[in-house]
Amino acid sequence: MFRGRLVTVEGIDGSGKTTHIDHICACLRQQNISVIRTREPGGTELGEALREILIRRVDLAMDAETELLLMFSARMEHLRKLICPALENGTWVVIDRFIDATYAYQGGGRGVSMDRIRLLENWVLNGLTPDLTILLDLPIEISLARTNARKQASDRFELQDREFKNTVREAYLERARQNPERIRIVEASAEMSIVKRAISDILGSLIEQIHSQI
Amino acid sequence: MFRGRLVTVEGIDGSGKTTHIDHICACLRQQNISVIRTREPGGTELGEALREILIRRVDLAMDAETELLLMFSARMEHLRKLICPALENGTWVVIDRFIDATYAYQGGGRGVSMDRIRLLENWVLNGLTPDLTILLDLPIEISLARTNARKQASDRFELQDREFKNTVREAYLERARQNPERIRIVEASAEMSIVKRAISDILGSLIEQIHSQI
Repeated sequence: MFRGRLVTVEGIDGSGKTTHIDHICACLRQQNISVIRTREPGGTELGEALREILIRRVDLAMDAETELLLMFSARMEHLRKLICPALENGTWVVIDRFIDATYAYQGGGRGVSMDRIRLLENWVLNGLTPDLTILLDLPIEISLARTNARKQASDRFELQDREFKNTVREAYLERARQNPERIRIVEASAEMSIVKRAISDILGSLIEQIHSQI
Repeated sequence: MFRGRLVTVEGIDGSGKTTHIDHICACLRQQNISVIRTREPGGTELGEALREILIRRVDLAMDAETELLLMFSARMEHLRKLICPALENGTWVVIDRFIDATYAYQGGGRGVSMDRIRLLENWVLNGLTPDLTILLDLPIEISLARTNARKQASDRFELQDREFKNTVREAYLERARQNPERIRIVEASAEMSIVKRAISDILGSLIEQIHSQI
């Protein structure tokens, strides 16, 4: 039995994560790879209860480090109950946001020290790293235009201003510079077919690399 | 302006924390000390929402380390929003369970490594320690008899068995052995008036000690 692979998809709102995760899962299933799709915060019953508190309860106005601890609480449950068992079972796991989002949102966006985030990362992840991270990068103007067009009920993070989104985007790009092998930047402002093609190519090369190691 | 003092009250269910915290607050107010009474998990709006998840949602059956992270999330918010501002303001804070409960319940009871708890304690408390902790110690048989008599709706921790309670009690006593200056053991099985008198004496000696330092 081979271990499954962990693929994470990152990006600010409006970067098309939902659509492109559909595409990633379809690509993997075409290769007869068993795949689970999940999201953070969330992915377990507890995680979804915490997501409700983290994203919807604007009124709580919680401290940034409390928010960070809650994100890691949901992640711990996600790892123990879903992610690790699936990977050990040979199933691939595709997650809508994971550890890089923590550095981008709580670190970049809310200003929590990256060193303090790293301490909790070590405590919770214990060395686990995604095998591949696709960062759907997008200029802030397009993100704002797309999310306004959706006219969704505003959630706590979407209420934040342009400056916040810009800091989050920069923190994501900095993570990509620090982890060039793992994090692949895809221009999410390009035409849909081009973005899909870029993602297919990245997945194809990961699968080829795995086959060559067997 | 003098800094307020942090007094924590610990013990297993049925040890009489509620009653004795009433008494502690009354004693302090008699000395013209301004005091806030609070509890963990809880004490803030977010903390109470997490308390609901931690104590009432038996169905979630969460991982022990997830539970630990959630306890510390609630504690971080409690410290930032209520405890630290009060202490800085010269107000005393009396808490129904705090850091020692984490070592007793998540460490002793649920078996999380004490070293791993210590890492999170350092991250969240950053050196803050209660000035005084009153440990209301009680034989398990009396605890069980008292809590059964109350016939409350069972909560997640009260459902745990005798063995669990015993491990929690032992972990509390071990904490007291490690911190003999700070943690004062009071025999909670004694007659009410004797317990109250013991607590009054302990508080009196703390207040005297503070006066002698001024």
